[in-house]
Amino acid sequence: MYIGGIDIGGTKVICAVADVNKKILSKVTFESQKDKPETFFQKCIDKLAECCDNINIEIKNLYGIGVTLPGMVDNNGVLLFAPFLGWHNVDAKAILQRLSGIDNIKCDCDVNACALAEAKAADCGSLLWLTVSTGIGGAFIEDNQIFKGYNFIAGEIGHTKVEYDKPRVCSCGQYGCAEAHASGTAVGKMVKEACENDSSFNAAFESHNLSKDAKGCAALARMGNEKALEIFDTAGDYLGRAVANAVNIINPSAVYIGGGMGANSFDLLSGAIRKRLLSDAVEFSKDIPVYPSKLGYEAALIGALSLI
Amino acid sequence: MYIGGIDIGGTKVICAVADVNKKILSKVTFESQKDKPETFFQKCIDKLAECCDNINIEIKNLYGIGVTLPGMVDNNGVLLFAPFLGWHNVDAKAILQRLSGIDNIKCDCDVNACALAEAKAADCGSLLWLTVSTGIGGAFIEDNQIFKGYNFIAGEIGHTKVEYDKPRVCSCGQYGCAEAHASGTAVGKMVKEACENDSSFNAAFESHNLSKDAKGCAALARMGNEKALEIFDTAGDYLGRAVANAVNIINPSAVYIGGGMGANSFDLLSGAIRKRLLSDAVEFSKDIPVYPSKLGYEAALIGALSLI
Repeated sequence: MYIGGIDIGGTKVICAVADVNKKILSKVTFESQKDKPETFFQKCIDKLAECCDNINIEIKNLYGIGVTLPGMVDNNGVLLFAPFLGWHNVDAKAILQRLSGIDNIKCDCDVNACALAEAKAADCGSLLWLTVSTGIGGAFIEDNQIFKGYNFIAGEIGHTKVEYDKPRVCSCGQYGCAEAHASGTAVGKMVKEACENDSSFNAAFESHNLSKDAKGCAALARMGNEKALEIFDTAGDYLGRAVANAVNIINPSAVYIGGGMGANSFDLLSGAIRKRLLSDAVEFSKDIPVYPSKLGYEAALIGALSLI
Repeated sequence: MYIGGIDIGGTKVICAVADVNKKILSKVTFESQKDKPETFFQKCIDKLAECCDNINIEIKNLYGIGVTLPGMVDNNGVLLFAPFLGWHNVDAKAILQRLSGIDNIKCDCDVNACALAEAKAADCGSLLWLTVSTGIGGAFIEDNQIFKGYNFIAGEIGHTKVEYDKPRVCSCGQYGCAEAHASGTAVGKMVKEACENDSSFNAAFESHNLSKDAKGCAALARMGNEKALEIFDTAGDYLGRAVANAVNIINPSAVYIGGGMGANSFDLLSGAIRKRLLSDAVEFSKDIPVYPSKLGYEAALIGALSLI
C-alpha cells in the first residue's frame, strides 16, 4: 500500500510517496509560486504523479493523499485563509480530489499535521506540540485527535503573551507574544542587539565566521560562550512561560518541541523551560516530560503522510 | 421524570430534585463536615431521599443523580483528590450507586459541571467558562463535551500567569497567577491596601457602611468612586490577560464568566477584559462574545443536574 504526501509551505512544496510505515520511497520538491489554486494544485498533482512514476506505480494506486497547507483549514479540507498565497475559502480537498481522481484526501495546516505525526510516532494520545522556527506555531492532541477549536485556529501558543512590561513587537502586530520573544527571529534580534553593545561578542561571531542569527548563536553557545548561552536562556524562559500557561490550560501528557530552532537547539532551551514549568505549572504538571521532536527536518511532510 | 442533584462544596452541601427542565422542585442544604467518604455520602443520600419525600416520590424513582465534587474527578467518577475533605482516590460514583440503589450517577468537579450547564443553557457547544470568586476556576467545552485533559485537570486558567514583574503570591504558593491578581480575594487585598494609603477611600467605605472587600468595592464603584472603579479595572485587565491567552490556545466560540464576583460585577470587569482581547487575542478572536453566567447563585447545583 502506498500513501501520497504533499507539504505545501511558504517557500517550497514537497511531494512524496511513502509506504504504510511512512518510509519515503520517492520525493520531488519545487518552489512555491503565487498562482491560482487550480493551477497550483495541478502542479502538485503532476509532481506527485512523477513520484509515483519513479517507483513504477500510478497515482490511482495511492491509498490516499495527505496534504499540509500554509494557513487555516477547516474540518472539510477547505483552506479558509492562506496569507502567503493570498487565497481565501479555497476548497482544497475537492479540487485535489478532482485533479487526482483520488477520493481519500485529507488536508490540514502543517502545525496540526506535525502534532498528529508526533503523536502517532510516540504512540501518545495527548500532547502539546510547538514549532519553534522563524515564528512559533502550536497545536495539541487530545484523545488521539487534533483539537481544532471553533474557528479551526486553536493552538496559537505563539501569540499568547509572555511579557507585559518590556514587550517586543511581534510579526502579528501585537506586543509581548511568545513568538516575539522566543522564536528563531527573536533570538536573531537579541544576537544583533548584543553584538552592537558588546564588541567581544561581535568578535566571537566574526572569528568563527558564524552568522549573527539563532544558528550562529547556538554554535557559540555550544563553545561555552556565556552571552550566547544567556540569549538561549532568555528565549527558553519565555518559551517556558508560554508552555507552562498552555499546560495549565490543556493538561497534556507530554510536550514536543520541533521546528528548526526548537528541535536543533532543544538542549540550549530545555533547562530554562523546565525551570519555568517548576515555578509556573500546577502541581501535577511540573514534571511533564518535554521532548525534542523526533520527526526530523521534513516534519511537515511526515505530518502530511500522517493525515492518512 | 425526576433528576437528583448533589452539589458538594467546601462549606455546604445542597441536595435537590428537579424536573427534566432542571426546575428545582425540592431542596435540602446542610453544612459540609470532614468525615469518612461512606458516612459523608450516606448523609447526602439521606438528604436527597428527604427531597424526594417532600414531593412524594421515592429515591428509586430518580432517572439519575448528578454530583459535583470539590476536587479532581476522573472520567469514571473517582474523586482523585479533594483538598478540603482530605480525601484521596475515593470511588465516589460506586459508593453513591451502592448507597442510593441508582445506577445512573455522574460525578464531576463543580467548575466543569458549571461549564457544561452553561453550554446546555446557551445551546453552545464550544465555550470557555471562568468562575471568578474567592479563587478563579476554569473549564472549557468543545463539541458539547467537557475537555478534561490527561490528568483530568485541564482548565486551570486561574493559575496561568498574568504578571511577571510585580507578581502577587497566590493561594497555590506560586506567583503572578490570574487568581492572585483578579479573584475576589485579590480585589479585597487591593481594597485594603488602597484604604491604608488613601484615607478618603477608607472614609468612603465607612460612611456607606460597606465591607472592605470585593462586594463593598463594587458598591462604591457603582456610586462612581474612581479608586473603586480603578481597582475593578485592574482586576479586569488581569482577567483579560488570562482570558486572551486561553482564547488563543483553545479558540472557543464564547466566554462565560460566573462565580460571585465574576457574575455580579461583570459590568465592572467587562470593559477591561474586552480591551485586553482587542490587544492580545488573535485576529479572529478579538470580537469573541463575553457573557456573564446565566446560571445564577446556585450554579454548581444546576451544574450537577446538567451532568444527567
